[in-house]
Amino acid sequence: MILTVTLNTALDITYRVPSLRPHTSHRVTEVTERPGGKGLNVARVLAALGHEVTVTGFVGGATGRALQDHLTSTPGVVDALVPVTGPTRRTIAVVDTTTGDTTQLNEPGPLVSPAEWRAFQDAYEDLLPAASAVALCGSLPPGVPVGAYAQLVRTARSLSIPVILDTSGEPLRRGVAARPDLVKPNTDELAELTGSHEPLQATRDARRRGAHAVVASLGAEGLLALNAEGHWRATPPGPVEGNPTGAGDSVVAGLLSGLVENLPWPERLARAVALSTATVLAPAAGEFDGRAYDELVGRVTVTGEASVA
Amino acid sequence: MILTVTLNTALDITYRVPSLRPHTSHRVTEVTERPGGKGLNVARVLAALGHEVTVTGFVGGATGRALQDHLTSTPGVVDALVPVTGPTRRTIAVVDTTTGDTTQLNEPGPLVSPAEWRAFQDAYEDLLPAASAVALCGSLPPGVPVGAYAQLVRTARSLSIPVILDTSGEPLRRGVAARPDLVKPNTDELAELTGSHEPLQATRDARRRGAHAVVASLGAEGLLALNAEGHWRATPPGPVEGNPTGAGDSVVAGLLSGLVENLPWPERLARAVALSTATVLAPAAGEFDGRAYDELVGRVTVTGEASVA
Repeated sequence: MILTVTLNTALDITYRVPSLRPHTSHRVTEVTERPGGKGLNVARVLAALGHEVTVTGFVGGATGRALQDHLTSTPGVVDALVPVTGPTRRTIAVVDTTTGDTTQLNEPGPLVSPAEWRAFQDAYEDLLPAASAVALCGSLPPGVPVGAYAQLVRTARSLSIPVILDTSGEPLRRGVAARPDLVKPNTDELAELTGSHEPLQATRDARRRGAHAVVASLGAEGLLALNAEGHWRATPPGPVEGNPTGAGDSVVAGLLSGLVENLPWPERLARAVALSTATVLAPAAGEFDGRAYDELVGRVTVTGEASVA
Repeated sequence: MILTVTLNTALDITYRVPSLRPHTSHRVTEVTERPGGKGLNVARVLAALGHEVTVTGFVGGATGRALQDHLTSTPGVVDALVPVTGPTRRTIAVVDTTTGDTTQLNEPGPLVSPAEWRAFQDAYEDLLPAASAVALCGSLPPGVPVGAYAQLVRTARSLSIPVILDTSGEPLRRGVAARPDLVKPNTDELAELTGSHEPLQATRDARRRGAHAVVASLGAEGLLALNAEGHWRATPPGPVEGNPTGAGDSVVAGLLSGLVENLPWPERLARAVALSTATVLAPAAGEFDGRAYDELVGRVTVTGEASVA
């Protein structure tokens, strides 16, 4: 199975309102809920691709129970979340149905105690031996040490299990130094890590900092990949309009599935770009359009070359 | 015990954000939750006054379980809520900590089936014999017939149990015709019911429509009461600044406690006005400031007279 870690899981709630006007009262016309946090989004896409996935991270309180109820009805995803006393956060996306714009309200997440963090590390070590690969995704909830991902990367590598890290800021900086197999920053995260706004240079710098492979997400322009085997650029067939929520998580799912299937790099990148584009095209945020994916995957342009050994 | 009915219970969530700007993303700095819906607010105030209270109405889904968890830790309130399949609604109050203004987002409430509505009526009939009085409070969730309150008023009256109705629109219109002991409209609700914006005339008209007593809530100007025994005006000692959320529910709690304690009408009204003012003064929405209440209750001005028998 593939293991995804979401330390700051969330119940993602979407409200549709005819028009959002601050300091007034609104009747919400439609409410949707789904399990959220990057690692859970990655897991949902992997399961849709036919992979067995186990999710871990923290879950707590009434919101945590609601999240787990939803997971029960997500086929192909096994729940190995670790209980905490504090409540799992909610995120609320208020969609103004007149303008199509979204206003986001994000709760902070539970305060995790040192004992809860140790209990998580034990659970993680128990899960790892059965994993073909692991993805470490998203922000850290309050109380989890900033070096948490570095530690989780080292544990996975000590067992020779490939590990992908998708986070930002100081947790990314420390995590990269622990030599993960792959990081997937977007241009902002890459610039924050390296100080460079030039993607190719910044990608090279991120590798020098410790990541074995770097796949930089350039938004609508696709992906830029660099590792010991070569460098590539993968570009979608054309511009698309839609909701980019979850597009980055689909990139991680594409790369991770390509890794465990041992696909050549150009194929992994084509899959990641096609999944990401099919996510932007799907009507529901964070889902992907399966038909669009099948149609797009052969039409992604991948340029670049393998290094001379 | 006193019975309060809240057909459209809610989990009231308050978010504090530094500044609410539509179409941007916000970190919520503080999250508070409490059981909501008018009848639950009334029950909390009654319990704080030392009364035994039982709450009924509908509750469902993960949000309903969260609401019931909170009720468990509310001393003096007994939970007799009736389960439904649909989820209890959330209400979200987003408080802009820079301006102090509040933006409200209200979910619609669960769709109640005819069988669920019948199950509620059975539960209500089982609870009534032990009740010294009953309050019917707030809006109706989808699926509950618009004549629901009229029916619940008739059932209570057939058992000679005093019944207070606090709702609006068509449910109020129909409920009044079933001859409740007391209705407590605000000026808008009264104008909608009677067509008159003149409070004294509208209050008289509401009595003619069937209510034995009418207590009109005039906001900061206090209460206007009319029944077979006389008419009164109750005015707070002076203007206060604060959050009016829940002030109307505190009026209902004051009137209801005065009714079961068989207080003379001027004392009931003084208590209701003092509780309402102490609710506006409390830092948390919907709570009341006990010390302010004790200090205010002797300073409410009540004018008017009892009718000649």
